Amino acid sequence: MLHDPNRVYVFDTTLRDGEQVPGCQLTTPEKIDIARELEALGVDIIEAGFPVSSPGDFLSVVEISKAVKEPIVCALTRANKTDIDVAIESLKYAKRPRIHTGIGSSDTHIKLKFNSTREEILERAVEAVKYAKRAVEDVEFYAEDAGRADITFLAQMIEAVITAGATVVNIPDTNGYCLPDQYGSKIKYLKENVKNIDKAIISVHCHNDLGLATANSVAGLQNGARQIEGTINGIGERAGNTSIEEVVMILKTHSALGLHTNVNSKNFYEMSRMISSQMRMPVQPNKAIVGSNAFAHSSGIHQDGFLKNRENYEIIRPEDVGFPSASIVLTARSGRHALKFHLERLGHKLDKDELYDAYKRFLTLADAKLDINDEDLQGLMAYRLVKN
Amino acid sequence: MLHDPNRVYVFDTTLRDGEQVPGCQLTTPEKIDIARELEALGVDIIEAGFPVSSPGDFLSVVEISKAVKEPIVCALTRANKTDIDVAIESLKYAKRPRIHTGIGSSDTHIKLKFNSTREEILERAVEAVKYAKRAVEDVEFYAEDAGRADITFLAQMIEAVITAGATVVNIPDTNGYCLPDQYGSKIKYLKENVKNIDKAIISVHCHNDLGLATANSVAGLQNGARQIEGTINGIGERAGNTSIEEVVMILKTHSALGLHTNVNSKNFYEMSRMISSQMRMPVQPNKAIVGSNAFAHSSGIHQDGFLKNRENYEIIRPEDVGFPSASIVLTARSGRHALKFHLERLGHKLDKDELYDAYKRFLTLADAKLDINDEDLQGLMAYRLVKN
Repeated sequence: MLHDPNRVYVFDTTLRDGEQVPGCQLTTPEKIDIARELEALGVDIIEAGFPVSSPGDFLSVVEISKAVKEPIVCALTRANKTDIDVAIESLKYAKRPRIHTGIGSSDTHIKLKFNSTREEILERAVEAVKYAKRAVEDVEFYAEDAGRADITFLAQMIEAVITAGATVVNIPDTNGYCLPDQYGSKIKYLKENVKNIDKAIISVHCHNDLGLATANSVAGLQNGARQIEGTINGIGERAGNTSIEEVVMILKTHSALGLHTNVNSKNFYEMSRMISSQMRMPVQPNKAIVGSNAFAHSSGIHQDGFLKNRENYEIIRPEDVGFPSASIVLTARSGRHALKFHLERLGHKLDKDELYDAYKRFLTLADAKLDINDEDLQGLMAYRLVKN
Repeated sequence: MLHDPNRVYVFDTTLRDGEQVPGCQLTTPEKIDIARELEALGVDIIEAGFPVSSPGDFLSVVEISKAVKEPIVCALTRANKTDIDVAIESLKYAKRPRIHTGIGSSDTHIKLKFNSTREEILERAVEAVKYAKRAVEDVEFYAEDAGRADITFLAQMIEAVITAGATVVNIPDTNGYCLPDQYGSKIKYLKENVKNIDKAIISVHCHNDLGLATANSVAGLQNGARQIEGTINGIGERAGNTSIEEVVMILKTHSALGLHTNVNSKNFYEMSRMISSQMRMPVQPNKAIVGSNAFAHSSGIHQDGFLKNRENYEIIRPEDVGFPSASIVLTARSGRHALKFHLERLGHKLDKDELYDAYKRFLTLADAKLDINDEDLQGLMAYRLVKN
């Protein structure tokens, strides 16, 4: 199935798991725009919607299928014939269609949600995969709430759906419950105990309820998964999904893992802003990789080290994710080196004593004012001209 | 040193590592307010500032020292006598003062930042701890950029500073570089190879450049660290620090780890909003634990399961972090159960056919409109009254 064992497939669900968030709903034309940008970003699979959920969502899957060429277009279903029929219909124009079907796998879901038994659920899972497989070659199966599922039952379920024809098996931590070592162990167990596991790709789909979605996804990849599901900016149900930009940059930064994706990371900055603005979902300034402060150095100790050599405080070059440049921001926590850097940029060359004086005046100003801009700095130096 | 081996100390650096962020600067009275709230939250240590950096920061440490009773008040320094003298002076009113001093430990920092050698840096580290120890019993040492440091040198440095009197040894992943298994292994190595390690508490201080700060902190705790440094909302330099609220709730949710803190998690919601508003630092809706959507269920599949039993899609009760309640938000991705839930809340009891009709009208409306509010629902039912 996999030509390159070190290739990680990126499955984007911004338009499905992301779009179901309160306030994030999009019109079909907006979704088409985003799908085209996702294609340019280089994601491998676009989950375009949950067609049975509403006529608008159905239409979006149809139109996205027409609009993109390279990525697989995927439609979500529950494990029943109606959902699958509607999804197949919605994918009729897709060059590379995928059905994503599944059912709960934890005892909590089996009992409290489906009021059912393991045996019955296993049968419904297998039937759904077989039913989808009649029309579409590429069928992904999700074992909902796998994060809390009994591992031997999960392994049994995964083996059965692969036998039924699933090409990808998704092990979601639906509730964002697992710790990274636990989630990694689950994937390792499946890799080692499911007899036919090499006939499918293992996919990781993590939620961020405890702030661990990215770490869990990486733990999954370290233990044999080769598809990662996530969204741009980590948007999604509740605390959101795995941030695609974080996982991609972890694989780039930690080249010793030997894993790579097809994503053009230089597009992240633009892509992030497009999603944030079109989906009305602010990105906090301290968001990893794409937040507005992600490459802003502000403390004196850091600025000093950074100005001596970027490598002291930079593990990713901002250019690599499309950021214009790193910034040295002046506040009361800045040191002499940062002040000198900015004054020289403005044409003021100072000797040691002059810098000492200017820095004292700078601190008084910066204790009283939040941000120091170029005009403030010019004021600081005008004061010197008058005084001297 | 530790009475309870399973107690994790919470070291809050919102007022130091958080406050140095562009735009987040606070006045001294604002810092005092926040320090009092942090005391009410139950953090064990408040890092109040970096006193040598500016007169305003010095004053803040003085005033915070007067304002709080229970928590240790900590002041940051570099490894030099001036910084330490100023910090000692700033802490003179603290009931439980701590000096936090340190120096770079990675070869990158030793060569590119200090233009020095391992031997010389080691000597400066030991001298700084001894110098601080003359005036303050509680001295924490940070080995800056420990995440990229050579592990045998790091172990040598840690052993030397504990011999010199350090009560806490902080192993910062300054650049947010490590993967959780790597960071956990570092802590494990120190625990197993530093002879006098049991005379000090190991502290974890992680940055979020790759989205892994929380996971790294937890990996540190799993391997023997017993102090965690972080901020409220994860604010801080660049992509920020570890979110205290995430680590605390992980320890609560995963009780099998057997670790606990003294934090009153019910204060998180209020604390988060106070920090966000006073420090002008928005929290994204999909932020774990404290984001406005953290407990909002919006997809039909999830809402259905949630209404059957909260446990299907809830691992933390919103009340436990001070959230008013979980919410079932109506969008085009919502199912019949969610619509029924809200219509019944508004006094409309529908039979199966009526619900089927209402749901069809609801979907048409929801495909066209972002958020469906109570007024929309009343409109939906008024239509039915006219029609019938």
